[in-house]
Amino acid sequence: MVKIYGDGISGNCYKLQLLMSYLKRDYEWIQVDIMKAESRTEDFRLKSPMGKVPVLELADGRVLGESNAILFYLASGTQYLPDDLWVRARILQWQNFERSVHEPSVAIARYINLYLGLPEKRRAEYESKAKAGRRVLRAMDEHLAENEFFVGGNLTIADITLYPYTHNAGEGGFDLSSYKHIQQWLAAVSAHPGYIPMKHAPDGLPLNQ
Amino acid sequence: MVKIYGDGISGNCYKLQLLMSYLKRDYEWIQVDIMKAESRTEDFRLKSPMGKVPVLELADGRVLGESNAILFYLASGTQYLPDDLWVRARILQWQNFERSVHEPSVAIARYINLYLGLPEKRRAEYESKAKAGRRVLRAMDEHLAENEFFVGGNLTIADITLYPYTHNAGEGGFDLSSYKHIQQWLAAVSAHPGYIPMKHAPDGLPLNQ
Repeated sequence: MVKIYGDGISGNCYKLQLLMSYLKRDYEWIQVDIMKAESRTEDFRLKSPMGKVPVLELADGRVLGESNAILFYLASGTQYLPDDLWVRARILQWQNFERSVHEPSVAIARYINLYLGLPEKRRAEYESKAKAGRRVLRAMDEHLAENEFFVGGNLTIADITLYPYTHNAGEGGFDLSSYKHIQQWLAAVSAHPGYIPMKHAPDGLPLNQ
Repeated sequence: MVKIYGDGISGNCYKLQLLMSYLKRDYEWIQVDIMKAESRTEDFRLKSPMGKVPVLELADGRVLGESNAILFYLASGTQYLPDDLWVRARILQWQNFERSVHEPSVAIARYINLYLGLPEKRRAEYESKAKAGRRVLRAMDEHLAENEFFVGGNLTIADITLYPYTHNAGEGGFDLSSYKHIQQWLAAVSAHPGYIPMKHAPDGLPLNQ
């Protein structure tokens, strides 16, 4: 059985919990408390040099980092990652979109707003992230106006990649009611059999990761 | 024949030029001058909603964005992207590493230093990026101490992904001479048959992308 090291309050870890739940696959969950910086210990850095969760560990001890790469590995051979090369390339396009423009704007704006309480000295940075985030959400909404899911008409790891930090974007100050196609898509992801919600962080504690 | 829309002074576009040169494959290059914000026009946004280069266009008009996804598509079936699932997952791990921690530190520090001339009001941001970038380069150097290339002992798209913004990190103020395994790896990539150098941007002009 595979092991997953992570913390459910991290959207990147939640991606893997969601996929495994959709797949009805068992796995061993090793809690790494990011509030206590447990991912930054010397021991954990042997598995993840940059001190990041999640990490996948196979039965033979091989480890893999980066949530999007782990999704690709675990979903291979299932309906959530079709074999067709063009479909895969477009899934990877959206995974890279998530890393390069979505997470740095939508997720970081939420982090500054929710966990740091939007301190005055970070307000300019927040506004810049929020503006970029609105462009990102608009691009997603336009794509979803013509597509029920991100790639190929069915739920894939492209959706699982983008869901965590989109569904809670309201906590970052984004008004999701302005994006009606995103709302329909969020509902479709949460209605998919096997769906589980994301764990909430305890209130008022700073997030180290 | 495929078309690639891009600008050779962008490291993300150079990735594709390098792969196609290694592969000895012909393609049509459509110059999109990022100094003139040509990627931000209404017309170009039909191909790339976020106004980003590079974009791949197939003969039938289908388009694909995000350099790392394009590398995956173009390298499929070649030595630069082996079929083995674990090898592919590890290649994707390094591609996600590039997007999530390498580009935001190493490449952005270079952008602030080289193109913006390290203005005083961005010095604190630069120092923060430079510090993060040194951690990233250290992690790469440690991995390369035990591996000639990033994944599986041969040059793959993982190396092509990380090469552009690593080989010119000196322009970002990083001292590459402190990373001897990175230096050996850079030499190996540039010695690989078919290698072409990255185009230099004209001096003194601001980069819009």
